[in-house]
Amino acid sequence: MNTLQSRNLTMLMDFYELSMANGYFENGMQDKIAWFDMFYRTVPDNGGFAVMAGVRQLIDYLENLRFTEADIALLRKKDCSEGFLEYLRNFKFSCDVWAIPEGTPIFPGEPIVTVRGPVIQAQLVETMILLTINHQSLIATKANRIKRAADGRTVMEFGSRRAQGFDAAIYGARAAYIGGVDATACTINERDYGVPAVGTMAHSWVQLFGNELEAFCAYARLYPHACTLLVDTYNVLKSGIPNAIEAFRREVVPRGFRPAGIRIDSGDITYLSKKARKMLDEAGFPDCKIVASNSLDENIIRDMLVQGAQVDSFGVGERLITAASAPVFGGVYKIVAVEENGVPQPRIKLSENVTKITTPCAKKVYRLFDNDTGKAIADLVTLFDEKLDDSQPYELFDPVYTWKRKTVTNYTAKELQMQIFDGGKRCYENPEIADIRTYCFAQVETLWDEVKRFENPHRYYVDLSEKLWSEKNRLLDEYSDKVRHAQD
Amino acid sequence: MNTLQSRNLTMLMDFYELSMANGYFENGMQDKIAWFDMFYRTVPDNGGFAVMAGVRQLIDYLENLRFTEADIALLRKKDCSEGFLEYLRNFKFSCDVWAIPEGTPIFPGEPIVTVRGPVIQAQLVETMILLTINHQSLIATKANRIKRAADGRTVMEFGSRRAQGFDAAIYGARAAYIGGVDATACTINERDYGVPAVGTMAHSWVQLFGNELEAFCAYARLYPHACTLLVDTYNVLKSGIPNAIEAFRREVVPRGFRPAGIRIDSGDITYLSKKARKMLDEAGFPDCKIVASNSLDENIIRDMLVQGAQVDSFGVGERLITAASAPVFGGVYKIVAVEENGVPQPRIKLSENVTKITTPCAKKVYRLFDNDTGKAIADLVTLFDEKLDDSQPYELFDPVYTWKRKTVTNYTAKELQMQIFDGGKRCYENPEIADIRTYCFAQVETLWDEVKRFENPHRYYVDLSEKLWSEKNRLLDEYSDKVRHAQD
Repeated sequence: MNTLQSRNLTMLMDFYELSMANGYFENGMQDKIAWFDMFYRTVPDNGGFAVMAGVRQLIDYLENLRFTEADIALLRKKDCSEGFLEYLRNFKFSCDVWAIPEGTPIFPGEPIVTVRGPVIQAQLVETMILLTINHQSLIATKANRIKRAADGRTVMEFGSRRAQGFDAAIYGARAAYIGGVDATACTINERDYGVPAVGTMAHSWVQLFGNELEAFCAYARLYPHACTLLVDTYNVLKSGIPNAIEAFRREVVPRGFRPAGIRIDSGDITYLSKKARKMLDEAGFPDCKIVASNSLDENIIRDMLVQGAQVDSFGVGERLITAASAPVFGGVYKIVAVEENGVPQPRIKLSENVTKITTPCAKKVYRLFDNDTGKAIADLVTLFDEKLDDSQPYELFDPVYTWKRKTVTNYTAKELQMQIFDGGKRCYENPEIADIRTYCFAQVETLWDEVKRFENPHRYYVDLSEKLWSEKNRLLDEYSDKVRHAQD
Repeated sequence: MNTLQSRNLTMLMDFYELSMANGYFENGMQDKIAWFDMFYRTVPDNGGFAVMAGVRQLIDYLENLRFTEADIALLRKKDCSEGFLEYLRNFKFSCDVWAIPEGTPIFPGEPIVTVRGPVIQAQLVETMILLTINHQSLIATKANRIKRAADGRTVMEFGSRRAQGFDAAIYGARAAYIGGVDATACTINERDYGVPAVGTMAHSWVQLFGNELEAFCAYARLYPHACTLLVDTYNVLKSGIPNAIEAFRREVVPRGFRPAGIRIDSGDITYLSKKARKMLDEAGFPDCKIVASNSLDENIIRDMLVQGAQVDSFGVGERLITAASAPVFGGVYKIVAVEENGVPQPRIKLSENVTKITTPCAKKVYRLFDNDTGKAIADLVTLFDEKLDDSQPYELFDPVYTWKRKTVTNYTAKELQMQIFDGGKRCYENPEIADIRTYCFAQVETLWDEVKRFENPHRYYVDLSEKLWSEKNRLLDEYSDKVRHAQD
């Protein structure tokens, strides 16, 4: 079951895409073949890498592209020509699309999605490609940081109530699972995406019963095999934990089970968890887990663990589901080539902001792995038709400081993008989400620790091939000349 | 048309709500009547107030609550009893619900949504109430700040591509319109919610033509009546503006129109806009507007205007649609009373964090307006059955520093919450969105400038009535005593 397949989100596009599409049509350019790249410029939270996610929803969207009569009626009122409206009525997606698979570490500047096809089509899908990949990659990246901070402990996604809309809760939980969390509170995700849904009780359970011990006993009777009790409704150490221990003794142990855990949702969790651990141990429950929640993120978790917090499992809410410390994944979608007689002619965008200059040309992207260590050495972006022979040494060089050079040998070059649409037809089978998650763990393992550091990570190299670099610089010179001459 | 009505989001709930609901059912408590309040604790961005939004989608959700066989099948595997599953199969929402109308300024600590009904039902809707209202109130609040910073100029929402999921784009644009922006780029919003959709061209338009002047002329020929040209593909001052002026002269003016505008999307916009203004004025186009976009928010806009930027219209993207500087609206949903024989008995939640202590009791909330100035004086939260006679003076007092007292006279007390469901039936007609927006402008006008200040705003008072205050303190004493005794 997949709720996105029943939704037509075709009109979720920036209106300028329609103004332009109508213009391309009216200028007889509808069959012009263009190449667009999606890439991003900086890693959120100053991290060393991001995690790709959202490809499955991108595929669902592209497979469902169609304009309804209601859409056409609206666009008729908004300056679209009858010819163009007829074109939209018969719209059939026919582009080639490549994407880096979900769960793969991705780096700034490399194409993570590439679209080749009639310019109208390739233009109209801009907003949704960016929206889908930006959102899920943002959350998968954040989740991966949090899971790594938890250092092997369980992490649960608890943020639905603070998510930025329904889809942010649903696809955010999906992306968080890909990035590494173990479960979500968001029930619909187990039904639709196979992400395990978990949850026990809120304070209201305790408050409804009025008496905390009575509330705990009622819960324990019902769920003796999975009894985790929330202990901070009144007072963690004086009331919550003593009552939890009593409830475990009365209702869990006699039924032949062991208590699952207690959860602390407020106060100084580092301090409280140490005290709680001692109390539980002394009560004969050293196997009872301590769950912590309350505005956690990777930095707080790391600090808590450094200070010896006795926490086995973290419930992470708003700071994960909104990636609160850096809530924007800045992917962009830029035209890089236009075909003339079947040959891609490069296009570049200059800018007052140097970082906004694009890398032109139809391209491919490779990741080079060291054959001895299995570690990723660098990514290499080449022209689309360039052959990379990994049986030969390859000289990498920094695209800005070109004297910084390094020859790699004994490596394997792996193409990163997979083709997901061929002439508008899907040609890619979505992996199972658990497999994506496992793949993500394994791929993150191929990165050196220096790249995975939270603070000041080592910058992983994304280099351009000599041919691509030359082509970019040729165009930069050409356009700078034009601008200079325009001024004279 | 409303796409939410065709989506069943019933299972978008934290799983603990189902664990508890199953528990209430198994403990024979399904008919117990409980009262829950949603309220929030702090204003995002340290602002003086927030703007309520999301009520329409909350209503759509509550009207569509139902469990499918697929839902029941999943829950059977997750420890729910057959009796409870049968209850869910026949689920019919029967609660009373009150909410503060969309567009109203709201303040920390006051109930903005109240639910009264069978505890299972009132518990199961927790996640979606919070999610819906938190998200849209967050964005409406941010949009209102940005619109106020723009000081009468046009503001357009351009953020879909960076939104946290599809709904964040759609309902975010809706909420931004309520909060004050004038239009959105997100086309689907005009079709489904009546928010005007706008947009002209991306850099790709210019790049596809290759020649900037040719690209501008082609656009101007097609849209001479609404010709806004993006001037920063190569170089704003040396290429973009001269070519725009030439295109206006060749293709717009001869057709009997005036140029609509130019848009600058990179570089130092304050500097460029002043130069651009001069060039356009000298070319005889003093009426040609200057549009700015590029990572704007209320602080940058205010700074730009202080420095004399010549901008008529702002396109605001990621920092609005994610409320990037404070991306979480921290609304919570807490049980406040349980009825015994039809009489609400208060419930309180203590906490190690004093700010997490709840205000118990079934309540009402009033806003007191000064009859001379029309300005809002304070909000007053009372017991549900307390009568407030605004023909009599009323003594307000600070709930913490109780010696701070103020007697108000010559005021009108307006109840803030409207009933939206009566016994599970909707009893509220959603206003038109344009009317909500107008209402929002007018309501923000009732706040003193001191409350609207961006930095260190005056704290608007949300006071408790004497009766409610006494009841809260009685319960605080009672539970503190219990905790103390438990320790002895």
